[in-house]
Amino acid sequence: MWEAFEHAAHYELDNLTAIIDVNRLGQRGETMVGWNTGVHVERARAFGWSAIEIDGHEPEEIDRAYKEAAEVSGRPTVIVARTIKGKGVKAVEDKDGWHGKALDDPDAAIDELGGIRNISVDVAKPDAAEPHRFETGELELPRYELGEEVATRKAYGEALAALGSARGDVVFEMYIAEQQLLAACVGLQARGWNAFGSSFAAFFSRAYDFIRMAAISRVNLRLTGSHAGVSIGEDGPSQMALEDIAAFRAVHSSTVLHPCDANQTARLVATMAETDGIVFLRTLRPNTPVIYDADEDFPIGGSRVVRSSDDDDVTIVGAGVTVHEALKAAESLEDEGISARVVDAYSIKPIDAQTLQAAAEATGRIGTVEDHWPEGGLGDAVLDALADSDDRPRVLKLAVREMPHSGKPDELLSAYGIDAEHIAAAARQLVGAEVAAS
Amino acid sequence: MWEAFEHAAHYELDNLTAIIDVNRLGQRGETMVGWNTGVHVERARAFGWSAIEIDGHEPEEIDRAYKEAAEVSGRPTVIVARTIKGKGVKAVEDKDGWHGKALDDPDAAIDELGGIRNISVDVAKPDAAEPHRFETGELELPRYELGEEVATRKAYGEALAALGSARGDVVFEMYIAEQQLLAACVGLQARGWNAFGSSFAAFFSRAYDFIRMAAISRVNLRLTGSHAGVSIGEDGPSQMALEDIAAFRAVHSSTVLHPCDANQTARLVATMAETDGIVFLRTLRPNTPVIYDADEDFPIGGSRVVRSSDDDDVTIVGAGVTVHEALKAAESLEDEGISARVVDAYSIKPIDAQTLQAAAEATGRIGTVEDHWPEGGLGDAVLDALADSDDRPRVLKLAVREMPHSGKPDELLSAYGIDAEHIAAAARQLVGAEVAAS
Repeated sequence: MWEAFEHAAHYELDNLTAIIDVNRLGQRGETMVGWNTGVHVERARAFGWSAIEIDGHEPEEIDRAYKEAAEVSGRPTVIVARTIKGKGVKAVEDKDGWHGKALDDPDAAIDELGGIRNISVDVAKPDAAEPHRFETGELELPRYELGEEVATRKAYGEALAALGSARGDVVFEMYIAEQQLLAACVGLQARGWNAFGSSFAAFFSRAYDFIRMAAISRVNLRLTGSHAGVSIGEDGPSQMALEDIAAFRAVHSSTVLHPCDANQTARLVATMAETDGIVFLRTLRPNTPVIYDADEDFPIGGSRVVRSSDDDDVTIVGAGVTVHEALKAAESLEDEGISARVVDAYSIKPIDAQTLQAAAEATGRIGTVEDHWPEGGLGDAVLDALADSDDRPRVLKLAVREMPHSGKPDELLSAYGIDAEHIAAAARQLVGAEVAAS
Repeated sequence: MWEAFEHAAHYELDNLTAIIDVNRLGQRGETMVGWNTGVHVERARAFGWSAIEIDGHEPEEIDRAYKEAAEVSGRPTVIVARTIKGKGVKAVEDKDGWHGKALDDPDAAIDELGGIRNISVDVAKPDAAEPHRFETGELELPRYELGEEVATRKAYGEALAALGSARGDVVFEMYIAEQQLLAACVGLQARGWNAFGSSFAAFFSRAYDFIRMAAISRVNLRLTGSHAGVSIGEDGPSQMALEDIAAFRAVHSSTVLHPCDANQTARLVATMAETDGIVFLRTLRPNTPVIYDADEDFPIGGSRVVRSSDDDDVTIVGAGVTVHEALKAAESLEDEGISARVVDAYSIKPIDAQTLQAAAEATGRIGTVEDHWPEGGLGDAVLDALADSDDRPRVLKLAVREMPHSGKPDELLSAYGIDAEHIAAAARQLVGAEVAAS
């Protein structure tokens, strides 16, 4: 909680009151500080909060504390309440071993507490006022020229700024604290805002429990993770997101998007703002060439067949940086008489099963290529889309299979087997295997 | 870091000295506290640490601080060092916008710093003494009778206790702080211990970044997550791990195990202790019947065909609680004349591709069933194992596809489509689909 305390004090949230219920007992034995409420007070003050100690069983003290808290200016307030776990029921009061357990005799316990079985208390409702709206204008997404070299992370930032101007969204600085970034996004959306959270994709692993709980709470979040995969180059594996697609696919209500060019990114950012659930957009550090016109549309659940013919021998499915490698591979394969279809699966969840099934039927062989670990990413999504179809093609998955070193992006795409050359080799292998098997 | 500060003080780690390098600047602009070193001192003291403020550019002050820190008893010490980012190179000294960037003129910067290009400093090496070893005896794993009803989480605890007695391992209490649990495990293994970390499987999501970094640091960890899936019953979705298999499969060097009975659990716990990398064992809250003899062996990468005949029509692959549901489904299918093979894929990563390929060849249809989201779990692992094989069966994946409610375990397995009845229906559908397609 201390990162939350730090941020709340930094932003001088004097309309925030926290309560610490200090009941001494954990699930198993005493907590680290037991009933030492002074420890909480001292820590809270060191983090810039006002703190009030009370007996949590005394209504007058509770009332007084709330009144005091409301009067504090420029700082949040924490009420540190000393309480007794199970108070009023002798069988369990202040006793170890009763956490999350049903009572042996619930009727006796209710009698001991005074016998009242239904209490209805009216409390003041939270302020349901509409949040402040900034002035807005027409949405003018950034537009990039075909062939231009632009990093999708840059296109994301420019598209988000455009979206903010058009929709009255707001950007908060959360410093290096991804859990607080998520918490703030959840809070903002609960108050009617359209929250976009941005960090390195790898660092969302820091907030994976917050993302998980946001999904359980049916929150709508738009999260963008940059610096995906080995294509970031020199910064090394700690900064390379290689598990993010797997982690976000396995979040209920999630959408996972991975654009390959700047115009596609800009359009998807606009679409994210309208999409419910946990929407994750994966962007790239290096520049990639613009291959789509600024007016093209990219619906959630769609894909784009960027290269095809009537007699394709094999299909290559990529997303993000690997779309460009797949296109290069298709060109070199053409010289050898192998015709490769290339699918840009920018929507990894939901994935465009129909286009993949059509490609499976037409070509009978599929290679997937992703700048990600082999588990839980694009390749698994493609296999899932074809698992139950009548045409079940041979699928070769190219992915990063060793812990990467630092290096230049092109060197790393090659070293870890996901560049044009490796894609072409996989395509040759697929064509050869089917010939051998037939 | 504050959870780490709290634990270090709680365990009175007076051989621990931390250094905060307070250089004022973040990646973008000033940090929340800038050069206000007093804030760090006040907070550290509130968390039970000794704190020393110094000028981080003064060797005498650094020396004095280290000496003082070594003399403090019963508490860890933090040295709060005020420093200037880029000190000595005027082009960047205390300037914003230079984080993680190469200098324009590195040669000039070296000249400005005195021109020395190679400095070799000998420092005291860390104490490489062998860690303390507890007295140990023979390994006597717990043994469970066939048909006995035991929760695998209970078998895990009993097996771990047996392993501790035999190997001299140790159990730490980390309170509710999964990140600190992981950090302690990493530290213990660096000092030559064999660290087992245990929590609810869902709560490892809190420490996903620590797990990710442990893999990058080539750490050997044994982690056990209990309370997997909807089979936990009443506690509701916040406690149900439904993404843990996906998250752990997407960790480099990981092994993912999911036993279905108490004897299998006990044997796998012993095997974990010998397995390098990040080993994750997923255990269950409810009792499950013992179906394996206590002397059976369960190697990593193996599986167990728990039911089969010479003319099976379909294969059902389960793990954990779904193995038992699959067995029940196979019994009811037999009455209808459908012969179902049942595979217990207790090793989900690596998965037993050979057994799955043989089942694919023999039965041509596979149903997978898991108490997990559909993404990145057992089903995806099975599809991956068959992606490139000559026999590519039709695969139906049963998994939890809605956000679960609270309920009795059996009710939930049924409500979310992964109980015996749904498995039998999927098997019928698979058999029917193949008949229709042929």
